[in-house]
Amino acid sequence: MTGSELVRGERADRNGPFLAAEAVRLGLDPARITVVGDRPEDLEQAFRQGLEADLCLVTGGLGPTHDDRTIELVARAAGRELVVDDALEQEIEGVSRMFAARLGRPYEDFARGVRKQATLPVGALSLGLAGTAPGVVLDTSGCVVVVLPGPPRELRRLWPRALETDPVRRVLERAPPRERVVLRFYGPPESGVAEALAEAGGDGDGVEVTICAREFEIHVDLVVEPGAEERGAALARIMRERLGKYLFSEDERTIAEIVLDLCRARGLTLATAESCTGGMVAARLTGVPGASDVFRGSIVAYANDVKATELGVSEEVLATYGAVSSETAAAMAHGVRARLGADLGVAVTGVAGPGGGTEEKPVGLVLVHVAGPDGEEARRTELPGDREMIRGRATAASLHLVRRLLESRHTST
Amino acid sequence: MTGSELVRGERADRNGPFLAAEAVRLGLDPARITVVGDRPEDLEQAFRQGLEADLCLVTGGLGPTHDDRTIELVARAAGRELVVDDALEQEIEGVSRMFAARLGRPYEDFARGVRKQATLPVGALSLGLAGTAPGVVLDTSGCVVVVLPGPPRELRRLWPRALETDPVRRVLERAPPRERVVLRFYGPPESGVAEALAEAGGDGDGVEVTICAREFEIHVDLVVEPGAEERGAALARIMRERLGKYLFSEDERTIAEIVLDLCRARGLTLATAESCTGGMVAARLTGVPGASDVFRGSIVAYANDVKATELGVSEEVLATYGAVSSETAAAMAHGVRARLGADLGVAVTGVAGPGGGTEEKPVGLVLVHVAGPDGEEARRTELPGDREMIRGRATAASLHLVRRLLESRHTST
Repeated sequence: MTGSELVRGERADRNGPFLAAEAVRLGLDPARITVVGDRPEDLEQAFRQGLEADLCLVTGGLGPTHDDRTIELVARAAGRELVVDDALEQEIEGVSRMFAARLGRPYEDFARGVRKQATLPVGALSLGLAGTAPGVVLDTSGCVVVVLPGPPRELRRLWPRALETDPVRRVLERAPPRERVVLRFYGPPESGVAEALAEAGGDGDGVEVTICAREFEIHVDLVVEPGAEERGAALARIMRERLGKYLFSEDERTIAEIVLDLCRARGLTLATAESCTGGMVAARLTGVPGASDVFRGSIVAYANDVKATELGVSEEVLATYGAVSSETAAAMAHGVRARLGADLGVAVTGVAGPGGGTEEKPVGLVLVHVAGPDGEEARRTELPGDREMIRGRATAASLHLVRRLLESRHTST
Repeated sequence: MTGSELVRGERADRNGPFLAAEAVRLGLDPARITVVGDRPEDLEQAFRQGLEADLCLVTGGLGPTHDDRTIELVARAAGRELVVDDALEQEIEGVSRMFAARLGRPYEDFARGVRKQATLPVGALSLGLAGTAPGVVLDTSGCVVVVLPGPPRELRRLWPRALETDPVRRVLERAPPRERVVLRFYGPPESGVAEALAEAGGDGDGVEVTICAREFEIHVDLVVEPGAEERGAALARIMRERLGKYLFSEDERTIAEIVLDLCRARGLTLATAESCTGGMVAARLTGVPGASDVFRGSIVAYANDVKATELGVSEEVLATYGAVSSETAAAMAHGVRARLGADLGVAVTGVAGPGGGTEEKPVGLVLVHVAGPDGEEARRTELPGDREMIRGRATAASLHLVRRLLESRHTST
């Protein structure tokens, strides 16, 4: 992944994780993700090393300026000359003339950049344009190189086309078909998961295990080589047996998607009442297309009097127990159910930090409450971490509490 | 950065961007960020390459299991033997005995891992523990290696201690003091920024320019080598002159921080009324510590009838103009001001996609409205991108509209 803003940490690389996950999905084995800046010597060294793999995916540096040197340096590393693709040049010229006209600038200002972007290594395939830069596939001896634009949206538009080219298809055909097993746990200690895995024989012997912990969810992914299916099945079975009470999913849906699906299956609507999470629970739910079937809305009652006026939390409860209390969380949950006419109300209140903590109610204390037509659930927890981690973990805790209530009280209609 | 979940794209690396930004802050020049998995051959190769730099920062793989091989392979790449640090072993044993007791497990299960984590390269400095793994600094000939735990929280606890060690201090002293100029623009076309930069002579000659575009903010960072101060000042001046109407900040505060500061300086409170952004505007504001001085709360009116009942949008407006209209946005802004007792109300409504668009109101259409004691502002915009990009861009647009209203109508009290 190339770009000075990436290597200087201005922006976190998103293309690397996306392409790595795609590689895994397609049965490939990502060995390395490298982020370099714009310096030619760094780029060239990275490309030479990349060419040692079966498939090398490169992003960025395809623009029209002199700083954009990806194509030139990939060609150099692969020992290929550069040649102008006339048809491609005409295509890019067409797009650039439109831009020039829109900007009220003479086309001549763009001409040199156009020629540059139409210049490809000999033998390369063009994937077509996203913007003015073409994606490129180059089949060298031993390595297939795919070069894509840096902007994630342009990359994702051209990536599927790369998968349809002959060179990339040939690499993918050589990848052994691998079975994937996905296990999602909520709440176990990370050591507990490590122990269950060790009991099951650990990874290796054809089963690669990846464990990823995020907001107290533990994601266990098994990639099973052909021939190791029995071992993979045995490992998965032992993990399920040892950690069954924490297992909440065997697919890759997020907890927000799972909650929405559970509500939809039961014909229930949902609203959130938030304080320290400040709208994050609602934001996660609405990030899922189709949430409007289920999600009615949210009241973020950041100031205490807003908890009273908008959620009907009584002044008495606020004065007696405080804004951060299980009593207030319960009142918020019932209040938002009533106010927004939702079947389910989930409320969260807590101390996100860094300030605001006391001995009795320290930073990280979070109360969650969910109320529905068939019952309610409440949780009190002390979350570690900084402000953003506490807010993120509280958000996940809220969604998991809704899941637990729905799974325990009701079966699908 | 090491870890199979990173190289497989399960999780995006956060440590790389954090450490790279720290390096830039300290006057260093990040050349490369490499993410590798757990395979020894990949790790060893990455470490050998890393040792070619003046400073090599390594994260991950410091746990007690046999898969955690970072220390062993760093030592091998640096040509150092390994030795057990007795004092460190006692320290880690103490922590592990506590864990063992808490888990109800015999200490013997942990003993081997403890010895392993107390084993360091000859001559290494321990930075102390985060969890059970020590951070380590190793001064080799030509390269100072800093090894830190993978979990970001543990890394950030030990990183400042690394900066205080003699080997790291010596590297930092050799870094030339560099001036940094930060320019933040909202709304210019990326090509306009590229042209202004070209007019100013482009980067190079002692001034390194990084341009990063995010949600229509353009972040321009200049890093000025000693001796190039005049060139840096001239470049900055030309950028300000050419793009002055888009310039909104010369520091690194986020737009959420800027809006909160502007409100606080004027003694004003703020509330949001959201639909397609689903709570993201509120979530960004509440992500800033101290937001409670200013932010009252939010009403996320995802269902249309909630816009009517909770924000007072009349049924007539909804029926005549629809939920996605400037009239509805205005009514939502005024409604949330009144309901939550805030001085300023900012509302956003739109079509986030992928479904829900029509010829007249396509995916990406967003209406924003801010109302305050001294006036109001409204914007209608058609945002490109997928659902998350539209929501993110709409969130930024809302915050920038508040900024523009406050900057145009009112001076600080």
